[in-house]
Amino acid sequence: MYSHCEKGGWILGNTIDGCQAEYVRIPFADNSLYPIPEGADEEALVMLSDILPTGFECGVLNGQVKPGDTIAIIGAGPIGLAVLLTSQFYSPSVIIVIDQDDNRLAVAKTFGATHIINSIVENAFDKVMKITGDKGVDAAIEAVGIASTFELCETIVAAGGHIANIGVHGKSVTLHMESLWSRNITITTRLVDTVTTPMLFKTVQSKKLDPKKLITHHFRLDQIVEAYETFGNAAQEKALKVILSN
Amino acid sequence: MYSHCEKGGWILGNTIDGCQAEYVRIPFADNSLYPIPEGADEEALVMLSDILPTGFECGVLNGQVKPGDTIAIIGAGPIGLAVLLTSQFYSPSVIIVIDQDDNRLAVAKTFGATHIINSIVENAFDKVMKITGDKGVDAAIEAVGIASTFELCETIVAAGGHIANIGVHGKSVTLHMESLWSRNITITTRLVDTVTTPMLFKTVQSKKLDPKKLITHHFRLDQIVEAYETFGNAAQEKALKVILSN
Amino acid sequence: MYSHCEKGGWILGNTIDGCQAEYVRIPFADNSLYPIPEGADEEALVMLSDILPTGFECGVLNGQVKPGDTIAIIGAGPIGLAVLLTSQFYSPSVIIVIDQDDNRLAVAKTFGATHIINSIVENAFDKVMKITGDKGVDAAIEAVGIASTFELCETIVAAGGHIANIGVHGKSVTLHMESLWSRNITITTRLVDTVTTPMLFKTVQSKKLDPKKLITHHFRLDQIVEAYETFGNAAQEKALKVILSN
Amino acid sequence: MYSHCEKGGWILGNTIDGCQAEYVRIPFADNSLYPIPEGADEEALVMLSDILPTGFECGVLNGQVKPGDTIAIIGAGPIGLAVLLTSQFYSPSVIIVIDQDDNRLAVAKTFGATHIINSIVENAFDKVMKITGDKGVDAAIEAVGIASTFELCETIVAAGGHIANIGVHGKSVTLHMESLWSRNITITTRLVDTVTTPMLFKTVQSKKLDPKKLITHHFRLDQIVEAYETFGNAAQEKALKVILSN
Repeated sequence: MYSHCEKGGWILGNTIDGCQAEYVRIPFADNSLYPIPEGADEEALVMLSDILPTGFECGVLNGQVKPGDTIAIIGAGPIGLAVLLTSQFYSPSVIIVIDQDDNRLAVAKTFGATHIINSIVENAFDKVMKITGDKGVDAAIEAVGIASTFELCETIVAAGGHIANIGVHGKSVTLHMESLWSRNITITTRLVDTVTTPMLFKTVQSKKLDPKKLITHHFRLDQIVEAYETFGNAAQEKALKVILSN
Repeated sequence: MYSHCEKGGWILGNTIDGCQAEYVRIPFADNSLYPIPEGADEEALVMLSDILPTGFECGVLNGQVKPGDTIAIIGAGPIGLAVLLTSQFYSPSVIIVIDQDDNRLAVAKTFGATHIINSIVENAFDKVMKITGDKGVDAAIEAVGIASTFELCETIVAAGGHIANIGVHGKSVTLHMESLWSRNITITTRLVDTVTTPMLFKTVQSKKLDPKKLITHHFRLDQIVEAYETFGNAAQEKALKVILSN
Repeated sequence: MYSHCEKGGWILGNTIDGCQAEYVRIPFADNSLYPIPEGADEEALVMLSDILPTGFECGVLNGQVKPGDTIAIIGAGPIGLAVLLTSQFYSPSVIIVIDQDDNRLAVAKTFGATHIINSIVENAFDKVMKITGDKGVDAAIEAVGIASTFELCETIVAAGGHIANIGVHGKSVTLHMESLWSRNITITTRLVDTVTTPMLFKTVQSKKLDPKKLITHHFRLDQIVEAYETFGNAAQEKALKVILSN
Repeated sequence: MYSHCEKGGWILGNTIDGCQAEYVRIPFADNSLYPIPEGADEEALVMLSDILPTGFECGVLNGQVKPGDTIAIIGAGPIGLAVLLTSQFYSPSVIIVIDQDDNRLAVAKTFGATHIINSIVENAFDKVMKITGDKGVDAAIEAVGIASTFELCETIVAAGGHIANIGVHGKSVTLHMESLWSRNITITTRLVDTVTTPMLFKTVQSKKLDPKKLITHHFRLDQIVEAYETFGNAAQEKALKVILSN
């Protein structure tokens, strides 16, 4: 469990400064750096540094997605979309993506969502129950980080199902144990360990996964302020991930 | 997942009348009755009908107890004590039992608890942290069913650990996602499936498990009112499980 | 483990007569029959009765195929091709199919094999080692049932890898423990349990799996002799699976 | 899988010289050395360096020993006895130890074997079948390394069971696939990874495991020749493990 290594874990940008510098020292580099093979697409690999292992480990693996499963992804930001892409490694039957942004939902549809729900326009609970024949989903994957989306997961998870939390929460949530105690459900939380980087790398090399789909904008280093502004207005700019290069 | 069989599951005493009758029809009997071999101790086997599989499946298996683990069992009633007995199948290093009843804690000590905490007298959180060198426990097993004991589990579970709920809750609880989101924990709920009855039966036959330890009182059928009164005043009567026979 | 049920298991066509009759009694029908929903494609479902669960359970699940894995399937008959189709539920990077029949290898290529090897024309061991950078495969799946193909699996399996046997063997094989003892490998055998029928059914309904690809010929019941002759000369007739209907 | 690390793995005494020297350089020490806490019993910990993780990982974990299981350990040398000690972490019902040395079998009995078989005096297959009611054992653990003991495992393993090989084999063995193909068995091989050293350490510290039981002789460094002779005549000298100290 690298994420909770007693002297390591999440260090850069958390317990020490981050990587926006000319030179960066990587603590415990022996255990966390991977060689890039010649000819590999470096932009694709940028997506492997955080967003894809986060979506895959915290969402897909913890949600124990299996062939034939019905799953719901709540939140269609970059992390939610990373879940969407990597969940398809396990061939679920039904992938429902729920968000409030029509552009992101449209992107989700092109990335493989079988159903999309704009939760402003539609009642998400009702629609999920309709899609799943009133059973709920085998895995409800939370990629937002607020109480209302977590509590939606509590209502749409099927008996025996999984709630896999990815979102960074600032407040507590209400856990409805009065109904959940008997439902055989599993709730997981996780700070990404990046133990799956080698596996993800193989799926990129073999074209099973195309992480470049997540890149919507490119900027040069001298446009960095503009880049941050674009990312800051992600919804308006229809931005997912932004690449900075020389 | 027998417990959520669409037409079966928890039927007796729930969706139809229970077993206090001269004759009882068992729905789906083919899948849920086991032959008692000649010479088996029938009183021991009464404990296998509910309490031991409940403690074992919902507490020990869901808590993923492993050799060397540190575990805490919150609640030393019959179910908590069933967890205590069956957790020892997996050789944890430290077994902390927390309750408010000194008699039950004394029983827990004789059943294999390495530490006991009376949470009226002592601060349970502080003491668990002291015992575990401030790491918390690998598995916190809730066998009470109220908000305060569940929330105690949230504070004493180690990073990467498990909260296995057994208690029947009547109200919601507060889930502190603001601290738990990054702690790689797993929370489980479960209505017993009794899939482990054959395994438990083998452990009884081979003397690895002595369920009769849980029986404190015997009554004849014509003493049934007294039996219920005794069980109703369990703390005062120092009652765990009560056997009724001809 | 239905396949080794003490009174059940593989009965039809094994311990009692098979199904070629006007009426058939199915022992333990409660546990082994599934309702066909209205509108389902019955020909596709015929493939779910044996060939697909066999390939999936004995080959793919026992071989523990994971995203990014390299796998080899030895034998491109209907069972080997069922492995090929269902292994893709788990997104392996490299799928090598080895056979001696160019037609079946060509079919394998259209079904998703990334590499094909005709072991008459080429040295299968050399070519697998070349494809895998001298590491061997994560899973070698034997779908023939003779000593030479099993022993090929022993040579091409990577350290830590799996040999999943499906083939029905008539003779013993030589197990090279003098090299394998230290290689951390797992060898499995299995008579299909059909526990995955519900999962496979969902993948068919959601179009993740198209079992009809395996059907090459159709006959009416009054052409049954011709049908058997076609299946008896499978290689020559380029036959995979044959459907008989009214 | 440390044992197959491309640049590491089994180095000392294999690809470079071993440890009989005044100073020793440990390659990749960061990943393979553990601090000894003050007050720990150093002689007990010597047993954790190889013999206990070997028995535990290759025998008990690979054999997937579960509560209530019936297991057979073939070979009562130090490794077989390490399996015997660590298998009890998982509370099997029946532990049969098979050897040809009465002294070692007597030791096995005191270490927790429920049944012992001297395979010179008795027919091991017949006796195992009698003990297990003709079902065979859930796990057959091979701790010798010759064809006859491996092939005994093939005959005594139950349907759905495990053969966990530990023995270092110099020759191939005959694998009876003509009977095993349909028996749903799993055969594993493994070079110890020592990933369980921290877990084993916790079981020693908490007195769940007493590895000193395996130490039969002590010598001073200046008696090293005598020590080797004793270990060389282990059967005659009734030697298990020998400690050398200043």
